[in-house]
Amino acid sequence: MAPTYTMAGSKGPNSYSQHSTYQRALLEVAKEKINEAISTKLNVNSASSRFNIADFGCSTGPNTFLAVQNIIDAVEEKYRKETQQNPDGNIEFQVLFNDHFKNDFNTLFQTLPLTKKYFVAGVPGSFFGRVLPRDSLHVGHCSYSLHWLSQVPKGIADRNSPAWNKDIHCTGFSEEVAEAYHDQFKIDMGSFLRARGEELVSGGLLFLLGSCLPDGIKMSETMKGMLLDFMGNCLHDVAKEGLIDQEELDSLNFPIYPAHVAEFKSVIEDSGCFTTEAFERISHANEELPLDPEFLVTSHKITFGGILETRFGKEAMEKTMERIEEKCQDILPQLANAKSGMQYFIMLRKN
Amino acid sequence: MAPTYTMAGSKGPNSYSQHSTYQRALLEVAKEKINEAISTKLNVNSASSRFNIADFGCSTGPNTFLAVQNIIDAVEEKYRKETQQNPDGNIEFQVLFNDHFKNDFNTLFQTLPLTKKYFVAGVPGSFFGRVLPRDSLHVGHCSYSLHWLSQVPKGIADRNSPAWNKDIHCTGFSEEVAEAYHDQFKIDMGSFLRARGEELVSGGLLFLLGSCLPDGIKMSETMKGMLLDFMGNCLHDVAKEGLIDQEELDSLNFPIYPAHVAEFKSVIEDSGCFTTEAFERISHANEELPLDPEFLVTSHKITFGGILETRFGKEAMEKTMERIEEKCQDILPQLANAKSGMQYFIMLRKN
Repeated sequence: MAPTYTMAGSKGPNSYSQHSTYQRALLEVAKEKINEAISTKLNVNSASSRFNIADFGCSTGPNTFLAVQNIIDAVEEKYRKETQQNPDGNIEFQVLFNDHFKNDFNTLFQTLPLTKKYFVAGVPGSFFGRVLPRDSLHVGHCSYSLHWLSQVPKGIADRNSPAWNKDIHCTGFSEEVAEAYHDQFKIDMGSFLRARGEELVSGGLLFLLGSCLPDGIKMSETMKGMLLDFMGNCLHDVAKEGLIDQEELDSLNFPIYPAHVAEFKSVIEDSGCFTTEAFERISHANEELPLDPEFLVTSHKITFGGILETRFGKEAMEKTMERIEEKCQDILPQLANAKSGMQYFIMLRKN
Repeated sequence: MAPTYTMAGSKGPNSYSQHSTYQRALLEVAKEKINEAISTKLNVNSASSRFNIADFGCSTGPNTFLAVQNIIDAVEEKYRKETQQNPDGNIEFQVLFNDHFKNDFNTLFQTLPLTKKYFVAGVPGSFFGRVLPRDSLHVGHCSYSLHWLSQVPKGIADRNSPAWNKDIHCTGFSEEVAEAYHDQFKIDMGSFLRARGEELVSGGLLFLLGSCLPDGIKMSETMKGMLLDFMGNCLHDVAKEGLIDQEELDSLNFPIYPAHVAEFKSVIEDSGCFTTEAFERISHANEELPLDPEFLVTSHKITFGGILETRFGKEAMEKTMERIEEKCQDILPQLANAKSGMQYFIMLRKN
């Protein structure tokens, strides 16, 4: 079973909405690309009146609603142009919202846009395996989910393994650690692609958005890597105060791996089910994380709060977040010199 | 919007499970019938490897899991016989669990059988309207949900209407009240059937199970009607104690209508989309509700607890349940003389 992550900060005031707004900016940029892609690359079968769209790793909204609406708008526009007919009443859209079994689907269902013109289905289950019937999907979408691995790679958290990583971050890690992460990424991304390959109809499109690393850049050189290191330092501070067991902390690792472009390309090619129609860097005005302490704490809380709380308890998690806020100013100069990571937009066409 | 009902008793000890066991006994009897129906009436297209099953009004389980597994077992058995092949790997089942938006899908998803061999989708929305794409469903199932109307019929709760029913029960009601209920049933059941008619593929089957009334029997003559009357009396007792406002109580009505067989048949015929393959009475050893005070209280709590609590508050609801338990013995002799209601099994084939 893949581990599951709850969004600890998602109900706090201003917290999730700010984080969510940041990701939304990227979705807006992707919208143009998706629109163009659907217009030129998607082969809508006008004989078929049903069109199925899935968002893999949908969480509880609202960004997933925006993402699927962008796709629907683009398909409708294409339909209008090509058939000179109104899509209303002619095409029926079904949107399949996928996330793991513990995702809060109740919230997702109760906050669906009132104006939606599609049939809704929630699909629980790990997207590293099949979750939909074969040949049932026309367009798949997956946004900011694929840097999560299905598990911490074997050996990484094991004191007696050569791949043991006693730091919580995956930066500056040994060759063995790097290899273990790389192998896990290959397994997971391969599983993801094979599953989608079976679910998508021939000619169907898969859009992947998220963060990765430009070739030649190490995670430790990027802002995200530095922030992960920084959270590691803060956790060690809290361990020194006795709120976290040091041995426990030494075996803490996250199943996170922002792969390099070359790694992505290689796994996609190996999968054999897709043609890469686009692999682009998305840029927007506010590409890097804003250097604002409150935002940084919120980001940490959303991404790691749930894991830390489960592992070390609420008090230790909150203490760590306090420490992050206190010491945040100290690393701002270092962050300002970070190398750029990369936001990717990948479009794959099912062979 | 259709009103929604929570199952107030569903988390109590022994409560829901006993009620659930009772309904399960009926599902077991229906199993044989469904098995035979699928074997003889369903035209499995062996060219299609996908098979979609929906349970309308699924609640949170576990009976819905049993119901869909019965259908899957029957389809697999038919496939084995007709093709001499193993269905595993050849047919992929997708089960669509439908209930209203406020249903607890999280619980449903987290209690799915570990051994399930089907893809899961939760489909939120009122089954009085479309919830699935057209021509996407092979077998539909709806168990013990269709005696709920989408709303209390217009006028019933309105002091100034000729159809005002100042009693909370629908027994012994005036001609106007009866007509209002009948009209609402026709609208709702018609909507249900038209929606399913669009969703089912041609030749697809729809199984309906539930309680109705044999022609010529009034609800007030049945145990369920007497129990509803009895709950009305207990509510009036609580109103006299001042815990419930009498005017509020006078306008309380439930959107419940166990239709007569003839009414069902007429609405099905009017819908024009189905051929009735079976309309049978299901019998089993324990057909009527057991005459056990604890069970009766539990049943009331499960069915009406949520509505009463929302309307009158928790204290009044609990007081009413206490009163039901206290006075229960008094009506047992009357209940023993009740006329039989009817458990129906209807099989419709999409034209």
